Amino acid sequence: MNTTSVYLDRAVAQFASLPGIGRKTAMRLVLNLLQRERADIDAFAATISSLAENVRYCQLCHNLTDDALCPICASHSRDHQTVCVVENVQDVMAIEATQQYSGVYHVLGGVISPLDGIGPQNLEIDSLVARVAEGGLKELILALSPTMEGDTTAFYIYRRLGDVPIAVTTLARGVAQNDQLQYTDELTLGRSLVERRPFNQHPA
Amino acid sequence: MNTTSVYLDRAVAQFASLPGIGRKTAMRLVLNLLQRERADIDAFAATISSLAENVRYCQLCHNLTDDALCPICASHSRDHQTVCVVENVQDVMAIEATQQYSGVYHVLGGVISPLDGIGPQNLEIDSLVARVAEGGLKELILALSPTMEGDTTAFYIYRRLGDVPIAVTTLARGVAQNDQLQYTDELTLGRSLVERRPFNQHPA
Repeated sequence: MNTTSVYLDRAVAQFASLPGIGRKTAMRLVLNLLQRERADIDAFAATISSLAENVRYCQLCHNLTDDALCPICASHSRDHQTVCVVENVQDVMAIEATQQYSGVYHVLGGVISPLDGIGPQNLEIDSLVARVAEGGLKELILALSPTMEGDTTAFYIYRRLGDVPIAVTTLARGVAQNDQLQYTDELTLGRSLVERRPFNQHPA
Repeated sequence: MNTTSVYLDRAVAQFASLPGIGRKTAMRLVLNLLQRERADIDAFAATISSLAENVRYCQLCHNLTDDALCPICASHSRDHQTVCVVENVQDVMAIEATQQYSGVYHVLGGVISPLDGIGPQNLEIDSLVARVAEGGLKELILALSPTMEGDTTAFYIYRRLGDVPIAVTTLARGVAQNDQLQYTDELTLGRSLVERRPFNQHPA
């Protein structure tokens, strides 16, 4: 279904190349852009160009940043002896949003997933091991998703660390806040029972 | 929820300004772009810029085009005596996709909708009336959506045409192909009964 404008077709094809955007949605987005002032359309395009030009990976934690070091790694008010290992940039944002963490991060860029052809060599695991081996760290929090791939990756990292003297922890698993017990899956409920905690140790 | 990159934040804000795209979806789209080659990101941006620069409205039918006249108005193989009046560019594409129409179009750019502050003066109705008044046309097909606004607009146009000698037609209404009768709304089913046709006049 081509339109009567080559440029319109091209823009629709570009938007439709984005994940989850079909041709009809792409057309709707492009027509919305076309209704804007020319300066606004140019600003939209310039913002995308500036992405390629300015955004890069933090040398230390591989988070996205505009400088050599990301604001978190460059901050003096963060605890640089505690490193939270996460799968991707969105996970950093999710953890930052909790306002419960003051350490730094290490973004793997994915998890080990043989089916998708992603092995340890495709991830920032060597750089993590090197970062730990340099010393000076107290704790490594393996904050990966509680899935088969996440668990495999966590276990692989744990093995790679060998006997480096560092505390390795992982996120607590259990029933989610506000979940109904009767609808909680049995694995989660069973594990939360086995790992039950003294009542007065629960955070407020 | 800001990221650790100002440029990333800006791009996410731009994508989130598009209809139906929330912040999380915008982030997913931008991260997808970031994983591409720099040349591909620049091509994406250039395509958007070229929209503003090159796409304009056809002088005659107000469809989107790259030239003064759209390919349909400029075509010698179309019937220029039959004009199909539609609400927007997507409707042109929908009708073209049927391959049942060989005439030309007139894109109103909307329908009369007092609640949204859209009156006849905001639409390409004056230009349509002028186009008809110039003469040389045989038929005007009012192909507007069968809604309150579409019907109002069609009736307004019909009134504005006065007694210009031109056949004014509208799309047939009735049960949709492959619809189950029991689930068809009563207005549609009632009207399709009142406007029943001789069996042997149905197209194959």
